[in-house]
Amino acid sequence: MTPQEAYENLLKWSREIAIIQNIIELLEWDQRCYMPPAAYLHRAEQIKFLTAEKHQRLRLEQVEEWIEQAEKIFYETDPHSPERANLREWRRWSERARKVPVKLVEEIARITSEAGTIWENAKKHNDWKSFEPYLERIFRLKMQEAEALGYIKEPYDALLDEFEPFFTAEEFDSIVGVLLPELKKLLNTVMESPENIDNSCLYRHFPVPLQEKFGRLVARKLGYNFEAGRLDVTAHPFTISPGPDDVRITTRYNEHDFSLAFFGIVHEVGHALYDQGLEKEHWGTPAGMPVSLGIHESQSRFWENIIARSHAFWKFWYPSLLQHFPILTDVSMETFWKAVNEIKPSLIRIQADELTYAFHIIIRYEIERDVLRGNLKVADLPDCWNEKMENYLGCKPSTFSEGVLQDVHWSAGLIGYFPTYLLGNIYSAQLLAKMEKDLGGSIDELVGSGLFGIILGWLRENIHRKGSCFTPKELILEVTGSAPRPENFLHYLRKRLGAVYGI
Amino acid sequence: MTPQEAYENLLKWSREIAIIQNIIELLEWDQRCYMPPAAYLHRAEQIKFLTAEKHQRLRLEQVEEWIEQAEKIFYETDPHSPERANLREWRRWSERARKVPVKLVEEIARITSEAGTIWENAKKHNDWKSFEPYLERIFRLKMQEAEALGYIKEPYDALLDEFEPFFTAEEFDSIVGVLLPELKKLLNTVMESPENIDNSCLYRHFPVPLQEKFGRLVARKLGYNFEAGRLDVTAHPFTISPGPDDVRITTRYNEHDFSLAFFGIVHEVGHALYDQGLEKEHWGTPAGMPVSLGIHESQSRFWENIIARSHAFWKFWYPSLLQHFPILTDVSMETFWKAVNEIKPSLIRIQADELTYAFHIIIRYEIERDVLRGNLKVADLPDCWNEKMENYLGCKPSTFSEGVLQDVHWSAGLIGYFPTYLLGNIYSAQLLAKMEKDLGGSIDELVGSGLFGIILGWLRENIHRKGSCFTPKELILEVTGSAPRPENFLHYLRKRLGAVYGI
Repeated sequence: MTPQEAYENLLKWSREIAIIQNIIELLEWDQRCYMPPAAYLHRAEQIKFLTAEKHQRLRLEQVEEWIEQAEKIFYETDPHSPERANLREWRRWSERARKVPVKLVEEIARITSEAGTIWENAKKHNDWKSFEPYLERIFRLKMQEAEALGYIKEPYDALLDEFEPFFTAEEFDSIVGVLLPELKKLLNTVMESPENIDNSCLYRHFPVPLQEKFGRLVARKLGYNFEAGRLDVTAHPFTISPGPDDVRITTRYNEHDFSLAFFGIVHEVGHALYDQGLEKEHWGTPAGMPVSLGIHESQSRFWENIIARSHAFWKFWYPSLLQHFPILTDVSMETFWKAVNEIKPSLIRIQADELTYAFHIIIRYEIERDVLRGNLKVADLPDCWNEKMENYLGCKPSTFSEGVLQDVHWSAGLIGYFPTYLLGNIYSAQLLAKMEKDLGGSIDELVGSGLFGIILGWLRENIHRKGSCFTPKELILEVTGSAPRPENFLHYLRKRLGAVYGI
Repeated sequence: MTPQEAYENLLKWSREIAIIQNIIELLEWDQRCYMPPAAYLHRAEQIKFLTAEKHQRLRLEQVEEWIEQAEKIFYETDPHSPERANLREWRRWSERARKVPVKLVEEIARITSEAGTIWENAKKHNDWKSFEPYLERIFRLKMQEAEALGYIKEPYDALLDEFEPFFTAEEFDSIVGVLLPELKKLLNTVMESPENIDNSCLYRHFPVPLQEKFGRLVARKLGYNFEAGRLDVTAHPFTISPGPDDVRITTRYNEHDFSLAFFGIVHEVGHALYDQGLEKEHWGTPAGMPVSLGIHESQSRFWENIIARSHAFWKFWYPSLLQHFPILTDVSMETFWKAVNEIKPSLIRIQADELTYAFHIIIRYEIERDVLRGNLKVADLPDCWNEKMENYLGCKPSTFSEGVLQDVHWSAGLIGYFPTYLLGNIYSAQLLAKMEKDLGGSIDELVGSGLFGIILGWLRENIHRKGSCFTPKELILEVTGSAPRPENFLHYLRKRLGAVYGI
């Protein structure tokens, strides 16, 4: 076998895994959008079958040999060339898949599948006690997984690595260390400002068909390609990609809440623009795949927050908004813009504003990190959660459902996932700073003139087309000239909230 | 390996094949209902991948040994027990899959994939010459397939066997031999009758949302379970089953044509009731699968024609129809009922009525049979087609598109498929005769009182629940006491048309 043949084998292997993954995503899309309710059990069997087919391929023994062979020809090339990046990532895939015993994988799948239903009921009935033993087992099993995967410093790193490759708890701690006191200060300033935002205009009557029409108009203008995508309705919005020319988004509507669907659509469009911007030529290989959840989230948050909550954005869109919703005629653009930027500490993460959202993530991160470090018992989670809420946001849940039971993630075994949300915010502001430098100043003028294509072009060039050729940290360094750091995010928040609150 | 273990292996193998097939069906459903246009190419790759996975399993060498082992324990049981039937069908699956060389399978897939596009363009531009060489190659390849599969009497049998297991051209010839002269006589009588049917009421304005509402109402009442199904819109209606509790139907609407969607829905509901009535316990094995296309078509035609075009059916539904469509208020039920039973020779198969439809099928059957018997050249197909149309129906296509190019089947390599449509009619009438005997007389009273559950119950018991435990011919014999024969169909047509045309 020549190195070239070995690389060809790897390409074929990688693309087959990608095909299976795409099919799984179509099954999931259908399940959440259109599947008849009675089909539930059999759909689980279908997904289980394909997942097993995928893992069987990921664990294929020959892969290691192929990689060693193929490395011989690419050793001298640019370490961020598609080939080198592919070999690096394929090694990671293969090692991660082969290190964790099949029995443990199956046990985690079994427990999290049960825990999903238990959690749903527990949340519905405010019943922490029924979920507690499941969460304990999940943490124990994930700890075993971390041990099997291996780590340099601490178990949490092995889990975080699945979502944000090569990122460590230590690094995230140091970001939080800078961020937390500054965010607290900023929140205090906002809370003490005399500005009284009236957001009632967002809760008037917005007929669903018009919300959809306006949402599609904006999505298209931002660059989302409907020829290679769809917008459907689901209880929990998401972006999913059943193929390289098939990136679908969903949203949910409430006719008495403008923000829910609109910012949801822009958020998913941000994710979808990333997926639609990957290099087709590298489809099915790491070089044509998104690099991490954090980078993915930076794209959704860039469009949702930085762009779509900006003054310039509404300067451009407000006339069209009024045409769609004459009910807003008496609302000034200024009032509307402030309403969509209101800061208000609250109990529920997914309803939080841009500033308080960070606290919600930090709370979750600190809790899961401390459990894995052995400094916190699962039994103490509810109290710990409530204390932190009180301490960081000054409000305390009165039920478990509004507190420790609110998110689906832990029941699904997603431990080490939450940091990627905050990294998304941090990356997005860091990218904004560099984008403005490259484009010669504030992007407000572009946004205000509806020239979103230039902004998208910059993201395509600097992020989307690079796929996984760089690790997330390398990518941020390569593009912005510095490692991930929270300063730009703080600067962005101060500027935005300064304008909104006159502080 | 004990016989019991061998049977367990076969069960697992069979259910895995069924899971793959279900997933393929979901991919096809999505492709035809909701897939973004740009995703077309990649979807073909996904289906190709799963089809290869399925065929690889069908060709598995150990299967033969498992079957031989397993036969030892079931040898003495009822030949129509689920286990015996499974072993019979698994042997057929395995033999059919292993007899045809992989190269030939791939060649047929390649040519028919190309031919699909060529045919579409040929039909659009009335260009027989561009399609002719493809059709020649398809017939040649299918001939090779037939030789590889083997047959007792003639190659056509090997192809027909894929769609209607154990049925032969000779048997179909003998049915056509009885049917053809009688149908000609009946058509002449109808054409000469003084009754002048005015079907203009069917082409008034029927708003699509109300058509859908009425269609769903009827579908539910007939027994279709929407909890385990869906109704969507596609250019070409179909029924598809991505899982045992997931049987989806589609239709198309024309607001100036009542029949198109309505009878389309009832037709697909007929198919879906069969799939929804299969034994869940035997899911993924032949005992829980439909036995043939002919039996499947007997179910759709039973509900579409025998039930939904009957006088009793409209006696029950007409008040509700008028409520949905007040535009029909001036139309008597009698006029409406005659309109949906009008007989009129025409060029296009899928627009044909119950009587002339049979001629369309016989023409296609005779042509493909004669090509395979070496008595007809592909180059002579257009002339042959037109002559037969003239001879059987008294009308002659003026273009290839309305003639030999009208159907998709041949371009897709579906040779030996058309007879199953006519067998569907024949079986359905034979089942009706036995059903009426069992239920103590005409079903008109049940239909007129909306007691569709009793009719469905009979079909469930006699057809659906039997899955593939009997071969199609055995099933008809077992249920009706005689082999498939055209007399009941002729009797049914004479009675129905006698009432409509007063002849």
